[in-house]
Amino acid sequence: MKKNNGVEILCIGTELLLGDILNTNARWLAKELAAIGLSHYKQTVVGDNCLRIQEAVLQASKRSRVLITTGGLGPTPDDLTTEAISKAFKAPLLERSQIWKEIEEKTSSSTFASPISNRKQALFPLDANIIPNPSGTAPGMIWLPNEDFIIMTFPGVPSELKEMWTQTGLKWLRQNEGTKEALFSRILKVTGIPESLLSEQINDILKTSNPTVAPYANLGEVKLRITAKASSIEQAKNLISPVEEELRKRTGLKCYGADDENLTSVVLDLLRKKQETLAVAESCTGGGIGYTLCSLPGASEVFLGGVIAYSNAIKQKLLGVPSEVIKKHGAVSAEVVKAMARGARKSLGSDWAIAISGLAGPSGGTNTKPVGLVHIAIDGPQGCTTHQERFGYRKGRIEIQQLSVMCGLNQLRLRLLARS
Amino acid sequence: MKKNNGVEILCIGTELLLGDILNTNARWLAKELAAIGLSHYKQTVVGDNCLRIQEAVLQASKRSRVLITTGGLGPTPDDLTTEAISKAFKAPLLERSQIWKEIEEKTSSSTFASPISNRKQALFPLDANIIPNPSGTAPGMIWLPNEDFIIMTFPGVPSELKEMWTQTGLKWLRQNEGTKEALFSRILKVTGIPESLLSEQINDILKTSNPTVAPYANLGEVKLRITAKASSIEQAKNLISPVEEELRKRTGLKCYGADDENLTSVVLDLLRKKQETLAVAESCTGGGIGYTLCSLPGASEVFLGGVIAYSNAIKQKLLGVPSEVIKKHGAVSAEVVKAMARGARKSLGSDWAIAISGLAGPSGGTNTKPVGLVHIAIDGPQGCTTHQERFGYRKGRIEIQQLSVMCGLNQLRLRLLARS
Repeated sequence: MKKNNGVEILCIGTELLLGDILNTNARWLAKELAAIGLSHYKQTVVGDNCLRIQEAVLQASKRSRVLITTGGLGPTPDDLTTEAISKAFKAPLLERSQIWKEIEEKTSSSTFASPISNRKQALFPLDANIIPNPSGTAPGMIWLPNEDFIIMTFPGVPSELKEMWTQTGLKWLRQNEGTKEALFSRILKVTGIPESLLSEQINDILKTSNPTVAPYANLGEVKLRITAKASSIEQAKNLISPVEEELRKRTGLKCYGADDENLTSVVLDLLRKKQETLAVAESCTGGGIGYTLCSLPGASEVFLGGVIAYSNAIKQKLLGVPSEVIKKHGAVSAEVVKAMARGARKSLGSDWAIAISGLAGPSGGTNTKPVGLVHIAIDGPQGCTTHQERFGYRKGRIEIQQLSVMCGLNQLRLRLLARS
Repeated sequence: MKKNNGVEILCIGTELLLGDILNTNARWLAKELAAIGLSHYKQTVVGDNCLRIQEAVLQASKRSRVLITTGGLGPTPDDLTTEAISKAFKAPLLERSQIWKEIEEKTSSSTFASPISNRKQALFPLDANIIPNPSGTAPGMIWLPNEDFIIMTFPGVPSELKEMWTQTGLKWLRQNEGTKEALFSRILKVTGIPESLLSEQINDILKTSNPTVAPYANLGEVKLRITAKASSIEQAKNLISPVEEELRKRTGLKCYGADDENLTSVVLDLLRKKQETLAVAESCTGGGIGYTLCSLPGASEVFLGGVIAYSNAIKQKLLGVPSEVIKKHGAVSAEVVKAMARGARKSLGSDWAIAISGLAGPSGGTNTKPVGLVHIAIDGPQGCTTHQERFGYRKGRIEIQQLSVMCGLNQLRLRLLARS
């Protein structure tokens, strides 16, 4: 195969080959490359083995223009990336005194001197450019062992990789390897419709070539990625605009946001705009809605808190659900979630309340109330509404809980929009 | 490099190269291979491109004995795995009438005939063995294009891959490629000590060669993987036993469990054994402890529920924290979490209560109360104890919340153990 102009990713670490950790670095870098329009044709994972790293680096140099490596830059004997690269291109490693000074400052303390093992982290080929590591002791490098091949090395620690990529690697690539064509993507997020049904409804649009539209199903939502190529970002955006408009028209209220937005951020924004507050009453999700809301900074402006009413006694005691309602309809019923939502709104003094009760399984299902059945109530200024979902027993407990959280947030979103 | 006896994994899918999805299949397969003691030296990812798949397959055939592929078995034009493999080894594809019949049964309905596009999923090399797909339309194959190379193909859908691997692929490999040496691993889980400090304390054990001991740091815990090689699983276990004992002795109560146990399951088990119940009072974690507990089946036997007291008003109203205590000490203080834990235990009528209040950031920190400061209280039969952690502002909001959840569960665990 002839050499291409693209970028390869090589992740180094025996823990990846043992399956001890997920390769989140490869995915993160792949997204970054897609965002700046660089072609990316291959990812490889090898262990902490000098010969195999050498072989992988040399093969990449014959195939692609840029190789990005992660991992193997630490101070221990199984960190071999720089050594293997230098051996692959028969280039000696030299100690950079300034780098060693910086590592010494980072690793020494009043009681201990810097470990001698860190010293190898200051070794680089003579003409390599350093990628500084503000948070850790492992700097990376940008090195051209020959004129048509570029190697960029990063540590395996995700936070250090991201910082070094953003501050140094990305800038260098943009300046030196940027494509003449601009690529721009926008992602629309749709919930409350399965991928297959949505695909049928927008089948004609999925066939367009510039921009392209590709659906990706996620837990409880479908992402529609619209990507355009043009001579400038501005022109790419102009190509995307009418397609986005048409997709939004066809999906209606099911399209809840775009790009970095998620259901939680959209719901919090809507509440913030109205200066209204929210409480939750959670049974089968056990606190999952509250936890999801609090994962975003500033949630405290609108989210007051709630009651985790996992046992029926708590539903009665803290939310005032009458015991006869539970007896008559069962804990998983429209009547009970209604009473839970009203109780939470009253007891916490919020403008809105989400209540949720369902069967997350794996046991406890019956013919009329199977595992996966979830009831949701939204109580607010215009009264209390209920909603029912059947996610199916095949989904598994954690997925049913996550889908329930999303569904609860989405029902509140629809109520908030209906009022505006 | 000379050919090895190991297994490679090749994941096929442009969505992986675009960073749209995480490669969970590679990790899952890697774990499976490690569990049966098969060597695994390399993972590769390529897109839906026939030439690149061919190249990757041929290179693997020169390097390794077994290649496992995932993805590219679907009915659409970008599903190219079987075609590329057949081209790589110049073997024609033939339709298997029985397979096509099965696919027809799966895809046809009363209104529609089977899509013709599915027909290509019945094409295989003449001498390939089929890996049946009980849930989907894409069967895989086990094929030996030449005598020292084995290809096994699986779909990219994780649930189908797992089912087909377990029912067919794994069994075949065990029978045909099983190692004579047995490999056995045990993972000890340690919390409340940083990886570097733990490594120093067990430095001598980390140097042993059979069994080997390798530490892996995770969020808030360190896993110690002990792996032994022997002529039988029983003998491998015998090698592990004294090392495990020594590690448990050195880590003491910090070692909370092994293998599939996690902090949540351990805490629920301890409560179940004592037949005691638990309530939570959560501020900065917003329901995270409750959500974590409820993720495990059977949590309802001991977990009653709790109060998400995100706002100070809720801390007073639902947990009875006196307003003067909040005024005097601030919401993030030992005094307030004490009152929260006592309030939750009383109000929910549980044997135990965990209360948590902290600064998850990114804003709101001060010199005396920086972001990352978290107070935890455990109220129980022998009174109320408090604990304080400083996770550091660098950790980020979500990580601080997750560490807080783990720390709260661990504090309860220590109290439960102290009493037994």
